[in-house]
Amino acid sequence: MYDQACEVLPGGISRNVVFRKPHPFYVSEASGAYVTDIHGVKRIDFANNIASLIHGHAHPKIVEAVCEQIKRGTAYTLGTEVEIEHARLLCDRVPGFDKIRFMNSGTEAVMAMIKAARAYTGKPKIAKAEGGYHGSFDTAEVSQSSSPANWGDIDHPNSVAHVKGTPKAVLDNVVIYHYNDIERTLRILDENAAEIACVLLDPVPHRIGMVSATPEFVEALYNWTRKNNALLCFDEVICFRSAYEGAQSNYKVKPDLTSLGKIIGGGFPIGAFAGRKDIMNILDPGGNDFRFALSGTFSANPVSMTAGKIAMEMFDRDAVEKLNSFSQIAINQIYEAGKVAGIPLSITGKGSMFKVHFRETPPTTYRDCYEDATLKNIMNLFLDKMYEEGIIMINSCSCTLSTVITQKEIDVLSEAMLSSFRHIKPHLKA
Amino acid sequence: MYDQACEVLPGGISRNVVFRKPHPFYVSEASGAYVTDIHGVKRIDFANNIASLIHGHAHPKIVEAVCEQIKRGTAYTLGTEVEIEHARLLCDRVPGFDKIRFMNSGTEAVMAMIKAARAYTGKPKIAKAEGGYHGSFDTAEVSQSSSPANWGDIDHPNSVAHVKGTPKAVLDNVVIYHYNDIERTLRILDENAAEIACVLLDPVPHRIGMVSATPEFVEALYNWTRKNNALLCFDEVICFRSAYEGAQSNYKVKPDLTSLGKIIGGGFPIGAFAGRKDIMNILDPGGNDFRFALSGTFSANPVSMTAGKIAMEMFDRDAVEKLNSFSQIAINQIYEAGKVAGIPLSITGKGSMFKVHFRETPPTTYRDCYEDATLKNIMNLFLDKMYEEGIIMINSCSCTLSTVITQKEIDVLSEAMLSSFRHIKPHLKA
Repeated sequence: MYDQACEVLPGGISRNVVFRKPHPFYVSEASGAYVTDIHGVKRIDFANNIASLIHGHAHPKIVEAVCEQIKRGTAYTLGTEVEIEHARLLCDRVPGFDKIRFMNSGTEAVMAMIKAARAYTGKPKIAKAEGGYHGSFDTAEVSQSSSPANWGDIDHPNSVAHVKGTPKAVLDNVVIYHYNDIERTLRILDENAAEIACVLLDPVPHRIGMVSATPEFVEALYNWTRKNNALLCFDEVICFRSAYEGAQSNYKVKPDLTSLGKIIGGGFPIGAFAGRKDIMNILDPGGNDFRFALSGTFSANPVSMTAGKIAMEMFDRDAVEKLNSFSQIAINQIYEAGKVAGIPLSITGKGSMFKVHFRETPPTTYRDCYEDATLKNIMNLFLDKMYEEGIIMINSCSCTLSTVITQKEIDVLSEAMLSSFRHIKPHLKA
Repeated sequence: MYDQACEVLPGGISRNVVFRKPHPFYVSEASGAYVTDIHGVKRIDFANNIASLIHGHAHPKIVEAVCEQIKRGTAYTLGTEVEIEHARLLCDRVPGFDKIRFMNSGTEAVMAMIKAARAYTGKPKIAKAEGGYHGSFDTAEVSQSSSPANWGDIDHPNSVAHVKGTPKAVLDNVVIYHYNDIERTLRILDENAAEIACVLLDPVPHRIGMVSATPEFVEALYNWTRKNNALLCFDEVICFRSAYEGAQSNYKVKPDLTSLGKIIGGGFPIGAFAGRKDIMNILDPGGNDFRFALSGTFSANPVSMTAGKIAMEMFDRDAVEKLNSFSQIAINQIYEAGKVAGIPLSITGKGSMFKVHFRETPPTTYRDCYEDATLKNIMNLFLDKMYEEGIIMINSCSCTLSTVITQKEIDVLSEAMLSSFRHIKPHLKA
């Protein structure tokens, strides 16, 4: 099958996250916490399509409602009631969400949020964290994959092209700050104060070691943006799952705009950004502050809206709390397994998402958590072994849990971790 | 309902195309060629979610297959067989499609295509037609809404921001050419030859009067790109429906890359770009020419793949031919209605899509077809009347037909046109 795939798909894949050597695994079907591949092997899913399935696969309530909707159509050139209901649900859920705009992906959400910040402030630059992942808008992906070979002076990190051929003009409009490093970050922001439209931040960044932003760092960014006519923009596409009101509820200060995606679509393509009314209103084609014309063929389609609304209704305060407690149990058991195996181990993350590091002390900044080729090889060994043991993880050695997980699956997870820790232990010592 | 919507959605809408005064219509359900609104009024759909539904609403074959798929899951962190099948189907269909990459929207498809062209050629600029619509990537939307107030000298059209706050750096990397104007276009391209990565062209541009690119124009662009280390990139997100092998089959020369969307998703969110193997291979993370890392949470999700595959299988050569013949019948009947009403009328378009112009001779260039406020008012009067008569059109006064249309619906369409022509006739004379 992979040979056939390679004939018509570059690298035989549609998404780099499924790429594996010698070939990706292929799914036959999935239900709840379990995924069965085409060879009939059943595994427990702790990846959940990169954090996007909060209730696991094919939740019966979502399946039923969505199939009902599909019989009545999937896309119209008219408005729908369910898009209003889903908007209301999310705006009621988070204090800072006055209004919301739906799109089709996290990439589109972050792109629109950045365009909104530029339109609102009239300034051309954004500031983002070195190593931060924010989708594939050219501006948002600068320095996503910075490495020691190109990241430059820590006081002035280089704006590094993630994709070859990214125009210099794009790079020049992206100011790179060193995550969780208040002093250096404020200095860089000050140097570009007149031109920065927004400071972009994922407060639990998957690609920066899943290390939470410190409250002091977030407050420093907030205060800086207040003083410098800039917006504080959170990317909560992934981390919104970590608390009932999103990761922003962990901080005293709140972002002006937040981008969303993943779980708010209930397993179907979605993106959104939400925030302050006076900013969001620049999208209103009938308003007197219209600055940002935005359409989208499949935006707010009734399938994603229906699935997303049900998923978020079911992910209420109790469900969030229960899921996060389960995640804490999993983390505790994995630490135990690490002790038994006798390997250096630390675990970062928030709520229902965590990442395993093969080191004693957790990282705090991007440069501190950079994964070189040797470490990547060990991670791949580990992931392959976990697969063999019946566990699907994200290729960053992360888990994102779903509400259908029980103690039984967590026990299997920590047992698989134990034997996978033992498997890689000789390489850690080398 | 609209009041409630306005509280949580900017302008009360999720997409500008559904915006209407005093408020959008809201759908209750849709089936085949018919859409029923929340007041129980049934209308014939000639918009088909802005050209994206090639078999109308809720086609039973698609509903059945998709619901079967949804029961087995909607998104995984693994590969699927159906993404390979759909890729194979599209690559077999069009001679120039060696390999394909799927995404979630036309916006993402065009963005990725442009990034691929920049990565492949190492050059920073793109050239695009004044007035051309290519989704909401900031680079692709430059001069999409150029007007006499800002479009500048026809020999050097301005790069006009579509969204306020678009950085000058973005505008400077977009060369605007005057559509279907060979001499002026080649001159502008020559002036920027060293920096142009690709010439972007929608050969049947919806927002440039749906005027087909002339064969001479396309050949001139093709020859220019051959000589200047640039790619010819077609945007067929909308116009792919116009012929079995897409609009590109109408020309002797072929693009290097083509972006797709709309109908290839069978009513579900989709985007893709396809083309020459040596270019597409820069996306292969395991290849030796890897330059373009691209992921995407919902890209190639099995729901869009399943629906899209069935939709495209059913849209075979016979179906395309039959649909295009029906469209020609509709066009003939509308011309008849125009004669009876005694209004100036011309109709542009290709295959199953056409646009009505209230003028004797069809436009040929963007500036020639520019719609000013007076004309827009007449168009809105016309569209409202068509709505009243039970017909949904795209707000550009365009129709895109689906295969479930019969002679009966075409008769209703042309009768509605007749009475709507009569309705606006006094304004045309004024």
